[in-house]
Amino acid sequence: MNVLITGAAGFLGRRLAQDLLEQNVGKLVLLDREKPVGFGDPRVVALGCDISRVDEVAAAIEGDIDTVFHLAAVVSGEAEADFDLGMRVNVEGSRLLLEACRRKCNRPRVVFTSSVAVFGPGADTEVDDSTAVDPRSSYGMEKAVAELLLKDYTRRGFVDGVALRLPTISVRPGRPNKAASSFASGIIREPLAGLEAVCPVPPETRLWLLSPKAAIANLVRASQIELPHADRGRVINLPGISVSVGEMVDALQRIAGPEVSGRVRWVRDASIEAIVASWPSRWDVSRALSLGFENGGDLEAIIRGHMEERVHSGR
Amino acid sequence: MNVLITGAAGFLGRRLAQDLLEQNVGKLVLLDREKPVGFGDPRVVALGCDISRVDEVAAAIEGDIDTVFHLAAVVSGEAEADFDLGMRVNVEGSRLLLEACRRKCNRPRVVFTSSVAVFGPGADTEVDDSTAVDPRSSYGMEKAVAELLLKDYTRRGFVDGVALRLPTISVRPGRPNKAASSFASGIIREPLAGLEAVCPVPPETRLWLLSPKAAIANLVRASQIELPHADRGRVINLPGISVSVGEMVDALQRIAGPEVSGRVRWVRDASIEAIVASWPSRWDVSRALSLGFENGGDLEAIIRGHMEERVHSGR
Repeated sequence: MNVLITGAAGFLGRRLAQDLLEQNVGKLVLLDREKPVGFGDPRVVALGCDISRVDEVAAAIEGDIDTVFHLAAVVSGEAEADFDLGMRVNVEGSRLLLEACRRKCNRPRVVFTSSVAVFGPGADTEVDDSTAVDPRSSYGMEKAVAELLLKDYTRRGFVDGVALRLPTISVRPGRPNKAASSFASGIIREPLAGLEAVCPVPPETRLWLLSPKAAIANLVRASQIELPHADRGRVINLPGISVSVGEMVDALQRIAGPEVSGRVRWVRDASIEAIVASWPSRWDVSRALSLGFENGGDLEAIIRGHMEERVHSGR
Repeated sequence: MNVLITGAAGFLGRRLAQDLLEQNVGKLVLLDREKPVGFGDPRVVALGCDISRVDEVAAAIEGDIDTVFHLAAVVSGEAEADFDLGMRVNVEGSRLLLEACRRKCNRPRVVFTSSVAVFGPGADTEVDDSTAVDPRSSYGMEKAVAELLLKDYTRRGFVDGVALRLPTISVRPGRPNKAASSFASGIIREPLAGLEAVCPVPPETRLWLLSPKAAIANLVRASQIELPHADRGRVINLPGISVSVGEMVDALQRIAGPEVSGRVRWVRDASIEAIVASWPSRWDVSRALSLGFENGGDLEAIIRGHMEERVHSGR
């Protein structure tokens, strides 16, 4: 298996690369805007690559690549703040990557990380893989466009694509980012690290969560599953758990005590609230489960998993 | 009203221009790959413009344009045969046009002609404006992408967009084109002109038809309707009539006699059949009707309308 990862310096990309290096991977090409560092393995080729530039993308993709994980993206908050940047990276970058795969490779499996942000507000409707997309953010629009491209490139036999719509990943380590959902990690991570965290949405706000560990397992799974039809079934809503933000803080209190959970401050932010409220919270993911994707366990498992990783990494 | 039409040398664009010139239009800019000719009106500015070239599009759009009809497209059969051409015109051309409107104009009304080809096969499901798109052709994918762009440009206040999903337009005058649905005009038009016509799909194949006259009326209507929300309701399935190809030939026989209808030869073409079969035939267009769009009448009205136009134009 010769693998290429875009967005490889990001949180998921880095973990995925580490996971793949523990498996039977041949070549592992890691792309990011700035050259990913910290991989000492001889199988790794790390390259700086602006994915929105045709020459750089074409130069980075070699014909022996059979598996691509396309994770590179401008996140939701940033894509809303800077429309042109989001279009360039999330739409044109995805198109250029697919084109390079079409021109240079032999129908590689392309695993694309899409998002639940493709959906519109639909509080009471259960969402499955055939639900209509109706994005209410530029990020969601850009992901929906990239899905359409991926599907048609697959239908035509240019690539062998599968798009995974990722739930909100929590708990992410590190610092807050410009994703509208950044708080969904911050309200667990920061209090456990002794820091205050601001929650910009009310406690009853529901999220659809997946742990980082399960997200990585699902990405790897997506590179392996057989999908019988080129013209359908190529977009999959990943499993997750539906929880309210209040339940998250309550679970934090049960596990780490009221002093820790008391570090969450509730300061509403209308723009983040509007974006998050447009994401659905009720899901039928029976198809994903039947394909072997996993939901990563309940809130306590998510929080304890994060705490163990903190200890493990010495943070 | 200062109007710009892309694809203005095409069948619909030319008729729309003529219709607008009979109304209270200020400037009328007509764009097509080759400069549209035959408009002697001083209000007309006709330009040759490759819509997939950023410099040409930017040069063609001036800031006083308040209404844009974006009709330019590579048709379905051609987009399937030449993927790159379809992407360049139908996706990149649409994006460049929206960008020019955003940069140079003051939130113009942009009427975009989308297509029922955005839908996938769903023989037994009734389609309305909220039905999930699931294109099974590159043309359908490209139209679905352009819809997503138009909707987000509208949500953000860059333009004031509305996408009309046009039924198959029949009876088109002139010669067959590379649209998969070209036969839907040919099987009426050619026999009436004393020519043989080949029907590539079986008689039971159902189509969703709209007359040219009603299509033009609906385009004009779309430039005038008030749409209260920038973030929803911007894509409209136009009314039409659901008929089988066999019913079309039967109606031709009733109106013009068996000698005329006998000029239809049934020679199946699997590739056209597959594309046409992927278009839905059962529709709920109550929303479009409530907005004042019209369905253009029954099969006999469509055929008689075409016959009158033939006489009128001396063909």
